[in-house]
Amino acid sequence: MSLKVTIIGGGSSYTPEIIEGFMNRYPSFPVTEIVLVDIEKGHNKLKIVTSLAKRMIQKSGLPIKLSYTLDRRKALENADFVATQIRVGGLDAREKDERISLSHGVIGQETNGAGGIFKALRTIPVMLDIAQDIHEICPNAWMINFTNPAGIVTEALLKYSPHKKVIGVCNIPFNMKNSVAEMMDCNVNDVEIEFIGMNHFVFGRSVYIQGEDRTAAVLEKMLQQNVDYSPANIVSIGWSETFIHALKMLPNPYHQYYFQKEETLEKDLTAFKENGTRSEVVKQVEMDLFEKYKDENLDVKPEELEKRGGAYYSDAACNLMDSIHNNKGDVQTVNTMNNGAIPDLPTNSVIEVNAVITKDGPKAIASGHLPLNIKGITIQMKAFEELVIEAAISGDYLKAYEAMVMNPLVQNEKKAKILLDELLEAHKDYLPQFQK
Amino acid sequence: MSLKVTIIGGGSSYTPEIIEGFMNRYPSFPVTEIVLVDIEKGHNKLKIVTSLAKRMIQKSGLPIKLSYTLDRRKALENADFVATQIRVGGLDAREKDERISLSHGVIGQETNGAGGIFKALRTIPVMLDIAQDIHEICPNAWMINFTNPAGIVTEALLKYSPHKKVIGVCNIPFNMKNSVAEMMDCNVNDVEIEFIGMNHFVFGRSVYIQGEDRTAAVLEKMLQQNVDYSPANIVSIGWSETFIHALKMLPNPYHQYYFQKEETLEKDLTAFKENGTRSEVVKQVEMDLFEKYKDENLDVKPEELEKRGGAYYSDAACNLMDSIHNNKGDVQTVNTMNNGAIPDLPTNSVIEVNAVITKDGPKAIASGHLPLNIKGITIQMKAFEELVIEAAISGDYLKAYEAMVMNPLVQNEKKAKILLDELLEAHKDYLPQFQK
Amino acid sequence: MSLKVTIIGGGSSYTPEIIEGFMNRYPSFPVTEIVLVDIEKGHNKLKIVTSLAKRMIQKSGLPIKLSYTLDRRKALENADFVATQIRVGGLDAREKDERISLSHGVIGQETNGAGGIFKALRTIPVMLDIAQDIHEICPNAWMINFTNPAGIVTEALLKYSPHKKVIGVCNIPFNMKNSVAEMMDCNVNDVEIEFIGMNHFVFGRSVYIQGEDRTAAVLEKMLQQNVDYSPANIVSIGWSETFIHALKMLPNPYHQYYFQKEETLEKDLTAFKENGTRSEVVKQVEMDLFEKYKDENLDVKPEELEKRGGAYYSDAACNLMDSIHNNKGDVQTVNTMNNGAIPDLPTNSVIEVNAVITKDGPKAIASGHLPLNIKGITIQMKAFEELVIEAAISGDYLKAYEAMVMNPLVQNEKKAKILLDELLEAHKDYLPQFQK
Amino acid sequence: MSLKVTIIGGGSSYTPEIIEGFMNRYPSFPVTEIVLVDIEKGHNKLKIVTSLAKRMIQKSGLPIKLSYTLDRRKALENADFVATQIRVGGLDAREKDERISLSHGVIGQETNGAGGIFKALRTIPVMLDIAQDIHEICPNAWMINFTNPAGIVTEALLKYSPHKKVIGVCNIPFNMKNSVAEMMDCNVNDVEIEFIGMNHFVFGRSVYIQGEDRTAAVLEKMLQQNVDYSPANIVSIGWSETFIHALKMLPNPYHQYYFQKEETLEKDLTAFKENGTRSEVVKQVEMDLFEKYKDENLDVKPEELEKRGGAYYSDAACNLMDSIHNNKGDVQTVNTMNNGAIPDLPTNSVIEVNAVITKDGPKAIASGHLPLNIKGITIQMKAFEELVIEAAISGDYLKAYEAMVMNPLVQNEKKAKILLDELLEAHKDYLPQFQK
Ligand SMILES: [Mn+2]
Ligand SMILES: [Mn+2]
Ligand SMILES: [Mn+2]
Ligand SMILES: [Mn+2]
Repeated sequence: MSLKVTIIGGGSSYTPEIIEGFMNRYPSFPVTEIVLVDIEKGHNKLKIVTSLAKRMIQKSGLPIKLSYTLDRRKALENADFVATQIRVGGLDAREKDERISLSHGVIGQETNGAGGIFKALRTIPVMLDIAQDIHEICPNAWMINFTNPAGIVTEALLKYSPHKKVIGVCNIPFNMKNSVAEMMDCNVNDVEIEFIGMNHFVFGRSVYIQGEDRTAAVLEKMLQQNVDYSPANIVSIGWSETFIHALKMLPNPYHQYYFQKEETLEKDLTAFKENGTRSEVVKQVEMDLFEKYKDENLDVKPEELEKRGGAYYSDAACNLMDSIHNNKGDVQTVNTMNNGAIPDLPTNSVIEVNAVITKDGPKAIASGHLPLNIKGITIQMKAFEELVIEAAISGDYLKAYEAMVMNPLVQNEKKAKILLDELLEAHKDYLPQFQK
Repeated sequence: MSLKVTIIGGGSSYTPEIIEGFMNRYPSFPVTEIVLVDIEKGHNKLKIVTSLAKRMIQKSGLPIKLSYTLDRRKALENADFVATQIRVGGLDAREKDERISLSHGVIGQETNGAGGIFKALRTIPVMLDIAQDIHEICPNAWMINFTNPAGIVTEALLKYSPHKKVIGVCNIPFNMKNSVAEMMDCNVNDVEIEFIGMNHFVFGRSVYIQGEDRTAAVLEKMLQQNVDYSPANIVSIGWSETFIHALKMLPNPYHQYYFQKEETLEKDLTAFKENGTRSEVVKQVEMDLFEKYKDENLDVKPEELEKRGGAYYSDAACNLMDSIHNNKGDVQTVNTMNNGAIPDLPTNSVIEVNAVITKDGPKAIASGHLPLNIKGITIQMKAFEELVIEAAISGDYLKAYEAMVMNPLVQNEKKAKILLDELLEAHKDYLPQFQK
Repeated sequence: MSLKVTIIGGGSSYTPEIIEGFMNRYPSFPVTEIVLVDIEKGHNKLKIVTSLAKRMIQKSGLPIKLSYTLDRRKALENADFVATQIRVGGLDAREKDERISLSHGVIGQETNGAGGIFKALRTIPVMLDIAQDIHEICPNAWMINFTNPAGIVTEALLKYSPHKKVIGVCNIPFNMKNSVAEMMDCNVNDVEIEFIGMNHFVFGRSVYIQGEDRTAAVLEKMLQQNVDYSPANIVSIGWSETFIHALKMLPNPYHQYYFQKEETLEKDLTAFKENGTRSEVVKQVEMDLFEKYKDENLDVKPEELEKRGGAYYSDAACNLMDSIHNNKGDVQTVNTMNNGAIPDLPTNSVIEVNAVITKDGPKAIASGHLPLNIKGITIQMKAFEELVIEAAISGDYLKAYEAMVMNPLVQNEKKAKILLDELLEAHKDYLPQFQK
Repeated sequence: MSLKVTIIGGGSSYTPEIIEGFMNRYPSFPVTEIVLVDIEKGHNKLKIVTSLAKRMIQKSGLPIKLSYTLDRRKALENADFVATQIRVGGLDAREKDERISLSHGVIGQETNGAGGIFKALRTIPVMLDIAQDIHEICPNAWMINFTNPAGIVTEALLKYSPHKKVIGVCNIPFNMKNSVAEMMDCNVNDVEIEFIGMNHFVFGRSVYIQGEDRTAAVLEKMLQQNVDYSPANIVSIGWSETFIHALKMLPNPYHQYYFQKEETLEKDLTAFKENGTRSEVVKQVEMDLFEKYKDENLDVKPEELEKRGGAYYSDAACNLMDSIHNNKGDVQTVNTMNNGAIPDLPTNSVIEVNAVITKDGPKAIASGHLPLNIKGITIQMKAFEELVIEAAISGDYLKAYEAMVMNPLVQNEKKAKILLDELLEAHKDYLPQFQK
């Protein structure tokens, strides 16, 4: 029986990780064919990555056919799963997001604030195109989206695409479980966290070790050890005891942008002055990686890859595909339709949530009402996400402005316009919907 | 490590079934101690059942200690699980419910209509007492309730008892899965049904076989074969094609009371004239069973037990305890807190729902909005349930009347009063809250 | 300044009443032009009514221009208000609704149960056509709809018509206030009732006399005097003390169909055997009225008109137009968008509610949650109304069946089909949407 | 017939305004007795104000009895209305709020941000005491609250006091209508604004002139004329065209704190350096006013009073009392129970809303869902308000911290603690609930 996975944005430096993921899961998830797809601009990288991937597979001796192509529609034929890991405009666009934001004294992170808004505006139309192709060519395929802002993109697809088999993934929930396992000196498989909220704005409401609720103990450990479960791309500042005691939940690394805004901005500005934008750092990391990948003797995923922020992304994605394929019915944390799981958020919105994974996709587990201490900010963030999606779909200037001015990292009526205008100009090639 | 189960209402004729359930699951759920509790009135039956249970265990050679007592508080000491299968007022009370209802031309089923209301009014205060004892004596124990009306009782406990570790179970979901397996000629473990609604008012919205959505095929099969997945206590009338096509879901056997009211009433009246009430039939079945149980050579569950409506009840209960004990994280259908899983019903109400079962109890899987075709009637039934609970707690005559007149099987302002007054008088010994 | 009112269904026997209403309100609502419109089938009646109306106006000496036409689009030119009082299929259709329902032992009232469903199915498409004409020809005109089922029709228009200036009116709220005034021996203008619910399913939650809450006193008076505030078309049975004490609100006359179903059915069957359907009675009343109208000496509204059920309809409509025209900001009871006024019902549904009336239309006054005792049945009725509207719009057989089987006056899966099929056949000329 | 008003905080410099308000409305609202109450600390001011008020009444020749007392419970006997205009801790406390906030670079406004939180924490317990007295002594009296934060205080009372006849008032809605009248060169009585939101966070969604929707025109006028409808205590910065075009509603003056945070902070810091806190400015204004009040020849409200931010407060209050007394049924903008009027906010929360005013109090007019562009921030502000109320009632340090860190003007986990600790210490005499 054939089992085909198409990877859109296959020329990414992350690809060796997901290839490794498939090889590791071969006994339960026996991929027969992998096609890496990218756009012309990434042709060279795509070839390099393809070669490495082929060497990795060859070494393993597994009967997996791997190829690459620039023809997306061709690549989708008979696909069972489609993984999307694109970056519209590449790292250059990210650099503009960061640089322009910081130049106006605003946090320039790629998935939050002004940067996140523009990443969404650039990405959503392209993702809708991809989903449309899937809908036409391989309508039974599940689309597993890693592309950020993953939650917003998934909601846009579930609202505006005819293709409904879409799931968003992020590595943060996995990172958090891993860190808890370290803190509590236990196996990560014994850790369960009840997540509540949205992608990059999710809280760990309860932590269970072997089924026992150990939330309070974990919070204390975190404070004592000043544990940092941030991914490589975010430098943690450390939370105060009072904040954690009042929150009574695990924050996620991105929460620093919201509750340590001034400190984070200062830290990012300092880093910017010293090393340029995060994007520029990543460009260098990527260049080094591709140099390594070219080495014809390399036939494993190089260790350096883990240094990037995306570790475990491919684990999240591969586990998901495995459970869908095998109708496992296990619980994983994904971005999927709310359906009432958080009754304070729109039923048709996308949340990051523990869900039972079957062949029919994820089913969110209900959490009940948001705790009052995060109710306001969580609902505000979701309303902001809705505004971004409306702006991305409509190409309406005022809607984009609404999203910008209502984002808690901007929320200034004059600065919102300055940022909006400068970013719209900078990214105009990737924002056709705003050129009408 | 000790693992103790206390069974309240242990003198029930069903007890051999649950004992068998524990024995079958011993490898994963190694019960060390079972205590059967009952009230003075059931002393004799309790002794008979205890003897049979001891013989069953002895035959198995398993190291399970079994005893009986009339001292409930003593029996609760160190319990890990408490199963409740009581019948306040016994079959005599049920007979009154049925007889009085039918005498006024109203359906007299024990968990629906006027009968269901009075069963709830009698049962809720006693269950609150039991839960209070558990809260004081073994606060970490899970209370697994089979006592009908199981959904209403569970909601009353979750709202008004300090003991929150309460789960309600019913065999109907299991029956429905079994019937689907028969229809589709497959293994019951390959069948998943998405249930939506409340206990005895639940619909099977989607049916999956090995993860594939086969709802439409199952509905057609059901119509062709005129399949009856009713428990023994309900004689099915058969659904029309149009009803099933419009419903697009599996009804449950109790739905005949609501959508075939006239036919069901006639059928019940005929049966009543021929054989007396269902209660009287059951009394005879019970008497026969206890005659069998007395046989000192009997050391297995007698086949005749399956003839009653409660088959699989103990399976539902044992599977639940097993998953909690082992933090399995599998999906079972239980009566638990809504928490938004059906956003159209109160967040703090109890629904019958697929839930992930862990050591921390069940977590409902979110379904999204009710389909419009069952939205109205489902919400009405839930509001009715709330009225019954308020009446049971307050002992307020007018609240009991509200529940009666708003029940879709009564819904007549004059008949409601006649039924209410006659039933209040008939059951006054078991309704102390109304004697104030 | 011109002020034009177009009356669609102008050939109705009720027209003299609304003409009188305009004449009485001339000082504040100076109508300059009235056009009566009807279809060819009603041509003769239209001419008779027009002549009488002209004589009435002439007698008053008011400068109101009145004419009639069969050309609806012409009649709508420059209209400021459009009153709709049509009856699709006429009294013949009503007779079929009543006769077929009763022949199957089901209540056959024209706005409730099976009859109400079919009146809605016939009426909604025609009303959408009228609203479309208004939208094109006189988009600033307010459409004041008397056509039953008034609430369902208004909701259908607000959901599916581009013309949003639509308000539904009924005389029941006015009747109820009048009856309270009689009971309490006070001026009707001193009576305020807080209405909660939907058209023909509305409750009077609080009754104020000169601003004082006198609800309890009014309920006692009603019980003592056995007061009947039913319109002429409904014979009251009288409510029991317990029902009223438990309800704690004023029921409306139509509630007998739901809470005295068996008695009402029997009464209607008896009346049917003695006098034929209500429709046949009304036909005779109408014929007598038109005989009177033909009398060239008649130049006032004849007293006999009040005998029909529609008394005060025109008062409700004229008061509404007056307040809109004069931006009065007073409170009237109308059928309009919920907008949260009853948070338990969909925000975009239509309720019968006290609303502030300005030039911008009615704004519903918020009531908070439905009392628990009517919460279930009210939500069920609203869900039923949604089903009817979906059926009327789509012409989908199964949707029509869903509406029928989920109506509390039918709610039998087999009878629903029999009624549906027989009524679909009987009315097929007026149900083009089902002939696809 | 007697009509008694008790004014708590009667020693306020604003009192002459409300006295004038009563005199002006005497024909429809014939007050027979006014009692001014204050605490010992305000004894001297109370005497001065009482003398002036007596001279004002004497001049008018109206038969109004006026007196003062320090005995609150005595003053409440037979009261029909109780106006509350207290300031717990006086201007000294306000100065601390402002000074401490600004010293940490945070906006120090008295009803927003850290200052608003502490004003709420100080005020709510005192207001609950007053409401308790009213409940015991004059349970039929309406409590009209001007004390800020008026919305939060009203919600706290409606949630936690047995006295439910409480309404909050603010002059901002009146100011906004006045400014619109100026802009549009029309009579203020011809202006209606649909308000949506909460006290000091309300938006003017639609503006009607003589019933016509003129919102767009008013917004353009506002931009052209750069109109400032701020009260005297807030210096407007002016809104950008883009903000107003995207908002599509009238902002209120306090919105500058949220959408022009940086500019407002800078402006406030500059003003602080030049003139000290706003509180100190007000202290001087008050001292000057009381000097004037002492003048035995003064028998009218001095013009200087209008310079303060509270103009029209007394108009709002007097109009409200007048309408309640006379069961007018007119529409006024008040702080009252939501009840679904804004379905996105809790049904039992308090909003600032147009309401129909009768003897039975205000009934909010339903608005439907919040526009998406303000949905997030409005819900967040309401959740923040709930946190403040919970903190004020419980005296729980962590709850107070939650309110502080989740306020959009603070929202920094470390700064929140610094502010909280410093303010708790500074105000400890007025925060007994936190001294447990
Ligand atoms: Mn991520
Ligand atoms: Mn059951
Ligand atoms: Mn009507
Ligand atoms: Mn104010």
